[in-house]
Amino acid sequence: MSQLVLHSYLNGKFYRGNSPLLKVNDLGLYRAYAVFDYLRSYNKTLFRVENYAERFLFSASEMHIHNPVLKTELVEILHQLNRLTNLPNIGIRLLLTGGYTKDGITPDKSNLIISSEMFQPLVNEQYQKGVKIITENFIRYQPHIKTNNYAHVIKLRKEKKMNDVYDVLYCYRGKVLETSRNNIFIINGNTLVTPQKNILHGVTRKVVLELAQNKFTVEEREISKKELLEAEEVFLTGTTKKVLPVTNINNQLFSKGKIGNKTKELLKLFDSYIQEYK
Amino acid sequence: MSQLVLHSYLNGKFYRGNSPLLKVNDLGLYRAYAVFDYLRSYNKTLFRVENYAERFLFSASEMHIHNPVLKTELVEILHQLNRLTNLPNIGIRLLLTGGYTKDGITPDKSNLIISSEMFQPLVNEQYQKGVKIITENFIRYQPHIKTNNYAHVIKLRKEKKMNDVYDVLYCYRGKVLETSRNNIFIINGNTLVTPQKNILHGVTRKVVLELAQNKFTVEEREISKKELLEAEEVFLTGTTKKVLPVTNINNQLFSKGKIGNKTKELLKLFDSYIQEYK
Repeated sequence: MSQLVLHSYLNGKFYRGNSPLLKVNDLGLYRAYAVFDYLRSYNKTLFRVENYAERFLFSASEMHIHNPVLKTELVEILHQLNRLTNLPNIGIRLLLTGGYTKDGITPDKSNLIISSEMFQPLVNEQYQKGVKIITENFIRYQPHIKTNNYAHVIKLRKEKKMNDVYDVLYCYRGKVLETSRNNIFIINGNTLVTPQKNILHGVTRKVVLELAQNKFTVEEREISKKELLEAEEVFLTGTTKKVLPVTNINNQLFSKGKIGNKTKELLKLFDSYIQEYK
Repeated sequence: MSQLVLHSYLNGKFYRGNSPLLKVNDLGLYRAYAVFDYLRSYNKTLFRVENYAERFLFSASEMHIHNPVLKTELVEILHQLNRLTNLPNIGIRLLLTGGYTKDGITPDKSNLIISSEMFQPLVNEQYQKGVKIITENFIRYQPHIKTNNYAHVIKLRKEKKMNDVYDVLYCYRGKVLETSRNNIFIINGNTLVTPQKNILHGVTRKVVLELAQNKFTVEEREISKKELLEAEEVFLTGTTKKVLPVTNINNQLFSKGKIGNKTKELLKLFDSYIQEYK
């Protein structure tokens, strides 16, 4: 893939192909003052678009970045970009920045940039074999929202690659939070548990909780690192991952390296939900 | 000031006026994966340019961002930009980003962007009256280096303005660290103290320590919040601030709202140093 952006929207206008240009004195670049979100389509339908739009605007409000569009307008822009791109599966990336600064620090009129991209689903092997994660003592800045603050995990990319690690699980004061890009769940018997505080409330997390309600006892609460390592099954959820089994934590085989039956069941439920999603 | 950038350098080329353009899929914008620095000139001479160049390249190395230039080349680019801009006092802003990403997360060839700007010194009143700061429990990500991670302080701008606060002093676990953009010093009797760990080692901080050596007992060590509030004099140092007295902390008049004599003496020493600086 040599070209990331397929179509884009920048402050009211749509563009075809290539990345749009921004002046360097945008505060998103100068000062990492920007909120972010990412959604996808399945078979030409944007998945839970309202949830993503709401979260994006909530992040903007929490960061005090002026949002130039109503939620209904934002949803319409996303649909329009999806129609323009006209591919069965795309990703859409949203960025709202503090705008071009005149003195290097003071925000001006925000810049809203939305781009459609080719979507590359995970390879089947990762669903069949599960993935490896490592834990790290870290907490994101403003974990309840999504900003462009991902420098930490990019910095770790070589270390991750060398150790063949799929993602880093952030823990803080002995509690399990989230991975750098996903939420985490554990299963014990018929109980499904996922952290509730100091995390991003993922849309896929939300859907999994909805789908699991009739089959599992669902708990949203603190999980200690010890509880994680002793769990029967562990999986991640995320927009690009759906329900992804974890089979290795901190270089120890987990669940004997096999994917748990309940994780499989939840992935199946999720896949059915997607197929029927309109 | 309607125009921030006077001249700029982008990946080997110099440009006149206006901000250069970058594609939005630069990782500095998408993922806040960028290092930053800022230096200034006095009377057409770049101040301590070697120190700033070293720190910038150190930040790049710590963030694992590939640096495309040698230190000598970087210093030469900075001098050339200064000559091009040809004004008595300018600011120069450096940014090195993870480059244009093809998949939204993986770095590519770094982008090096350097811009010269008009420099607006602080108004005299701030040196004569001192400034007001408030403390906050916060620690920067990777405090020993300078990244573009300034979102927190921009988020707080309205609150700061409402309370007429000049800067926010980050404290962590009861220890004084640094303000959002400056280092901090306290004076008691003939002893000058400044934190040493979990801070950015500012160039102005370094110069002040050098200048103070013959007149003060200098200590680089932990300072508790209590010690700060009981100090005789407090001041900030920074590239754009030189030596700036603090006369109000957390809405309490400090030093009876007057500027201490030793702070004045250090500012005088600093100003002499600038005048003789070649």
